[in-house]
Amino acid sequence: MHAYRSQTCADLRKDHVGQDVRLSGWVHRIRDHGGVLFVDLRDHYGMTQVLCDPDSPVFAEVEKLRSEWCVRIDGTVKARDENLVNPKLPTGEIEVYIRDVEVLGASEELPLIVFGDQEYPEETRLRYRYLDLRREVMQKNMVMRSDVVASIRKRMWERNFREFQTPIITASSPEGARDFLVPSRLHPGKFYALPQAPQQFKQLIMVSGFDKYFQIAPCFRDEDPRADRSPTDFYQLDMEMSFVEQQDVFDTVSPVIAGVFEEFGGGRRVDAPEDWPQISYADAALWYGTDKPDLRNPIKMQVVSEHFLGSGFAIFAKLLEHEGTEIRAIPAPGGGSRKFCDRMNAFAQKEGLPGMGYIFWRDQGDGLEAAGPLAKNIGPERTEAIRQQLGLGVGDAAFFLGGKPSAFERVAGKARTVIGDELGLTDTDRFAFAWIVDFPMYEADEETGEIDFSHNPFSMPQGGMDALSGDPLEVLGYQYDLACNGYELVSGAIRNHKPEIMFKAFELAGYGEDEVRKRFGGMVNAFRFGAPPHGGCAAGIDRIVMLLADEQNIREVIMFPMNQRAEDLMMGAPSEPTSDQLMELRLRVIPEE
Amino acid sequence: MHAYRSQTCADLRKDHVGQDVRLSGWVHRIRDHGGVLFVDLRDHYGMTQVLCDPDSPVFAEVEKLRSEWCVRIDGTVKARDENLVNPKLPTGEIEVYIRDVEVLGASEELPLIVFGDQEYPEETRLRYRYLDLRREVMQKNMVMRSDVVASIRKRMWERNFREFQTPIITASSPEGARDFLVPSRLHPGKFYALPQAPQQFKQLIMVSGFDKYFQIAPCFRDEDPRADRSPTDFYQLDMEMSFVEQQDVFDTVSPVIAGVFEEFGGGRRVDAPEDWPQISYADAALWYGTDKPDLRNPIKMQVVSEHFLGSGFAIFAKLLEHEGTEIRAIPAPGGGSRKFCDRMNAFAQKEGLPGMGYIFWRDQGDGLEAAGPLAKNIGPERTEAIRQQLGLGVGDAAFFLGGKPSAFERVAGKARTVIGDELGLTDTDRFAFAWIVDFPMYEADEETGEIDFSHNPFSMPQGGMDALSGDPLEVLGYQYDLACNGYELVSGAIRNHKPEIMFKAFELAGYGEDEVRKRFGGMVNAFRFGAPPHGGCAAGIDRIVMLLADEQNIREVIMFPMNQRAEDLMMGAPSEPTSDQLMELRLRVIPEE
Repeated sequence: MHAYRSQTCADLRKDHVGQDVRLSGWVHRIRDHGGVLFVDLRDHYGMTQVLCDPDSPVFAEVEKLRSEWCVRIDGTVKARDENLVNPKLPTGEIEVYIRDVEVLGASEELPLIVFGDQEYPEETRLRYRYLDLRREVMQKNMVMRSDVVASIRKRMWERNFREFQTPIITASSPEGARDFLVPSRLHPGKFYALPQAPQQFKQLIMVSGFDKYFQIAPCFRDEDPRADRSPTDFYQLDMEMSFVEQQDVFDTVSPVIAGVFEEFGGGRRVDAPEDWPQISYADAALWYGTDKPDLRNPIKMQVVSEHFLGSGFAIFAKLLEHEGTEIRAIPAPGGGSRKFCDRMNAFAQKEGLPGMGYIFWRDQGDGLEAAGPLAKNIGPERTEAIRQQLGLGVGDAAFFLGGKPSAFERVAGKARTVIGDELGLTDTDRFAFAWIVDFPMYEADEETGEIDFSHNPFSMPQGGMDALSGDPLEVLGYQYDLACNGYELVSGAIRNHKPEIMFKAFELAGYGEDEVRKRFGGMVNAFRFGAPPHGGCAAGIDRIVMLLADEQNIREVIMFPMNQRAEDLMMGAPSEPTSDQLMELRLRVIPEE
Repeated sequence: MHAYRSQTCADLRKDHVGQDVRLSGWVHRIRDHGGVLFVDLRDHYGMTQVLCDPDSPVFAEVEKLRSEWCVRIDGTVKARDENLVNPKLPTGEIEVYIRDVEVLGASEELPLIVFGDQEYPEETRLRYRYLDLRREVMQKNMVMRSDVVASIRKRMWERNFREFQTPIITASSPEGARDFLVPSRLHPGKFYALPQAPQQFKQLIMVSGFDKYFQIAPCFRDEDPRADRSPTDFYQLDMEMSFVEQQDVFDTVSPVIAGVFEEFGGGRRVDAPEDWPQISYADAALWYGTDKPDLRNPIKMQVVSEHFLGSGFAIFAKLLEHEGTEIRAIPAPGGGSRKFCDRMNAFAQKEGLPGMGYIFWRDQGDGLEAAGPLAKNIGPERTEAIRQQLGLGVGDAAFFLGGKPSAFERVAGKARTVIGDELGLTDTDRFAFAWIVDFPMYEADEETGEIDFSHNPFSMPQGGMDALSGDPLEVLGYQYDLACNGYELVSGAIRNHKPEIMFKAFELAGYGEDEVRKRFGGMVNAFRFGAPPHGGCAAGIDRIVMLLADEQNIREVIMFPMNQRAEDLMMGAPSEPTSDQLMELRLRVIPEE
């Protein structure tokens, strides 16, 4: 017989009754029922009830066992009494009578209980991660993560993509976030950097003629921590294709993402890729107040400026005299009560706006009636026009925000979410996707007016060289995101593979040729030697798993995460280097003032 | 029609004759045959001959094309004349008459020619890696690497292993090689380290209850470069299992490795796993002079001390009076000529030994005759006894080395290789595997006599705690390597999961409990809470691909390798940091003296 097990803790069934078996696993719980010891023996695969009565030669040893001791038992499988069968447990029809026991690994007193749902401070969970990970939900999350990544790989292979590994110790590349630096011992005073993303490498792979690349790639950014972002590194499905246009990338990626969500979504509805809308960045901002809209929420905002122009609602009427302002309405079907409207108004105030005007429609026996101070100010005709534009009726409400969109859009987007949630309009059992397209290439600094890239500087401007001779703020890029349930899941672009267009694009943002060569030399040099048109995208693995596992914090889907202070409490990182290590790197730490 | 291609450059066949097609790719070569321009158009998938006659509206544009320009062409597929069909090319039955052409990416003058086999200095190849990678052999190597890794993953999944990602930014852990350090910005003066291997993490995954883990894992070591090792990082198939013994690991890994070699070995014979011998470390040293024997070479060395004890060959006879010495013979079937024997003797001298005694057997008409000075010195009886022990005859030779095995074993091993190669005994069309087992846990420093771990300190000593109370140098570990064709392909162990045995094992090597806790705290702490018995191994991906691709240098199977000075010439790494970067990390570079 095998030294440790003849079956796993998930295997035994009625068919095994009478057999002598050997199991290994952890003591999940141990109970004394009238002198008989019941042990729930747990391994990665499942749980089996094993028991020991006082007649057993090893009773005294079993009595010593405690939770989370790792043990091997030998015993005989017996059928449970009909009334003791546990239908929730795959092994619930049987139990194993212990004949022999061996302690494989004893445990000291536990800082964290594995069974049950007791909550522990994050510090405890991370310091004793190996215990935390033994809990059922963590086992499930990690298994799901592994299976999601495997499924992504299979789907990419099926589409004739090959995975290529790109360097992790490489050059610093100022792409936006902060690099992690790695001092070189062979070249003291010089540093490598960990890649923020394999962006340049994947483009170089295209220039090298490989046509279709993907990688489940670790990315490193020295950023300040957030709940949905690890403070040091994260994984993305990174992919790139040659000889493609934007729609080709969508046609390739959409079924991969949809397939993964179908496979692991636990029955939640997944919109079919052919139904995923393509929404321009401008429309997304207008309709949803964000470039990562949650389309499970049916609310779509509308511009209603015309109804307030010169109206009796002085605040809005005056506002509209300034250039670049507008009034937007958030329709709220079913929100037609003063109580709800006041609550939403308070919400807007909490978010830093003066408030949110509203109208709601009711029927107090005299037919349709518009209520709220705003309706009174603008009068019945304008109110009715607004109602008709928004398609609302009795029991509904609408909220109004005015000013420069950039000043209220963020709050408008949040209000839309809260309204959708509170009114139960948002279908939480669904994954709703949308491609956001036509991102502007440039933005002007609000104060200085200086032009800079608004997103990825490597994207091809729509209209190519010609477009770059006009107003930079009008230039759109072949750049796109995939939004899902309010998260940005994928981001990508058709790349600017022509050196002359690239230099021009950077020039508009104030970077000279020398600067570009210095920053992105590897890639810019390569483009001089027959670069193919190419494009691709990257999808956040951690975020996909977080959505599928229905978790709110990325640390629930990472095996050994850092804490919020970018510390690994279990391994003790970061730590002080030895003076030999510093000497070899020719570095000195500057003491704190 | 698609913007760039209706087919790839590998797709067109006779069936397509008459069709209008669109292809994109690189100008591999362009030739002018009597006014008609022939272009070999190449993409990742293949090559198609496209041509342009002077009547074409785009003749002038095609005339401007040069090698490695990236172009799109539109044209009509025509059958080639019977006598112009190229059977070596999958598209060799057709050619495409160009009707339209678009330059997608022009190229400057090339520092490296893509077609043909011209050799370039490594510096050129690495600086212009994207051109180097366009060459057929590099495309094949990279595709093979990607396919090997994919195949390994599929084979591990089939065996119910799951891939889990372990941290890349983690704690410094003095396991042997030098760590790459990463300064922390949030904790100035403290450093992270890149993992030399996920050793501690994979053991923690077992303690976390995951049962079967693998990862295609990047490993980082700041080591001095070698041809078969990258100076910064390498990839390994890292795996670990709970509740297993050594043989379980072999039974799991052997078919994975064998399967990959069958799949990608290009028809070379692969020994079946059930035939892979298990050779003790001691026997491997004795028989092959190395712990990574090349078993394609049938030569097996033997101890022949008894025949020299008190013999007329004074050098060996005297040698044997010292403790710990012995005489070993390298049989050389077919090596029975003075010329060959002298050449091998010279080889040993070049390797730093005084020489290699030899006997060879010939028949000059009078029957079997032993020749060489050594035979004369020891006389015919002893010579004949040696011949019989080694099973040699006319036309064969034997070489002799004496002294302390540690002094001559390395050269003996090399001599065995050279003899096998020169005599054509080594079957080069074969992958021959052997598990090397029973590694000693400890070794004594030759000068100080101090005891230290000879290999992995985390291995379980055979015999457990009991074995550790005897002579440390007698203790064997559950530690093993897989050798293939003279390379170490896999290395692993059953781990020491019991804290008390681990502390004792470290104590023997001179490390106190505090030291162990400080160095390996993450793991040692975890073992206090019910650790399961576990073991596993790691296989070098780069080396496997190198063997399969029949390459001698690891840089031929890595997409973007460093040069020997650990520099990335293409990306310009390492480089000087900005003073802002250093300031944020609170570091100062100490100027050179």
